[in-house]
Amino acid sequence: MFYDTTVVQFSKMLQNLSAILDKGATFAESKKIDVAVLLNSRLAPDQFHLIRQVQIACDTAKLGVARITGKTDSAPKHADDETTLADLQQRISDTVAYLASFTEADFSHAATQKITQPRWEGKYLSGYEFLIQHVIPNLYFHITTTYAILRHNGVDVGKKDYLGAMPYKV
Amino acid sequence: MFYDTTVVQFSKMLQNLSAILDKGATFAESKKIDVAVLLNSRLAPDQFHLIRQVQIACDTAKLGVARITGKTDSAPKHADDETTLADLQQRISDTVAYLASFTEADFSHAATQKITQPRWEGKYLSGYEFLIQHVIPNLYFHITTTYAILRHNGVDVGKKDYLGAMPYKV
Repeated sequence: MFYDTTVVQFSKMLQNLSAILDKGATFAESKKIDVAVLLNSRLAPDQFHLIRQVQIACDTAKLGVARITGKTDSAPKHADDETTLADLQQRISDTVAYLASFTEADFSHAATQKITQPRWEGKYLSGYEFLIQHVIPNLYFHITTTYAILRHNGVDVGKKDYLGAMPYKV
Repeated sequence: MFYDTTVVQFSKMLQNLSAILDKGATFAESKKIDVAVLLNSRLAPDQFHLIRQVQIACDTAKLGVARITGKTDSAPKHADDETTLADLQQRISDTVAYLASFTEADFSHAATQKITQPRWEGKYLSGYEFLIQHVIPNLYFHITTTYAILRHNGVDVGKKDYLGAMPYKV
């Protein structure tokens, strides 16, 4: 369950995010505007801009999987210094590559793994609680917000871009 | 796994959504504007307004659980005629009440349940695929979009309102 729900589905969503960003680039080109305008857009003055939304989406996937597998030290470091679309695409593909380094066996203790963070002041969540109540809602939040920023600016993205292809069977 | 991931977590998120809408009402009151302005707002001219986002969030939870448990006939019908905040709050509480009618045992065949919809032209997904790749991403999409519409209009909502309380242990 953990492997499919994280490595497989998170990778799919990050690839959808990558394709959504490319649609933003195509839009910018067609309107003869600098794509950086979109990358620095936000929905409210005190909300993170698109670049930060993508960074957090990537970190949510990266650190979520690192923490529930107890492999925090294996997570690649990122300086959060992306400024261009190419930088963001690199960040996404680095994250997807990192996720691909996990196997199902890495998740054997995931459900009961004790997860803590400095700001939780010594308190903890189980790996299962952390995944369901924290990681998954956060990942979708930041991908949807990225999508919403582009949508608000006129980029022609739709629900299918967000969900990606479904593995329909006949 | 299925029960916690759907009934428990979806109910939590719908209750968070309800509290977020109440923050919208408080904001409208303080600004002396009709809350209906917020309810009819959208982030793009061809995007659904807030009312429709909440309706779809509720239906995603309701029909998602109904379908993966094979109990589609048990789902309450909704006419999608909500126009006020009170209507939307009723829709949310109806949905939470419906989710509460399920037990863990209802999900015993959920993973392999064949899920299909008229527009899928006879093709199907397993209950597990449907949950992970369709229901969950859609639910968070519509809750986040509702949040984003309010945030864009100046309502003081933050990530804690979206995530809700965490079950921290000492």
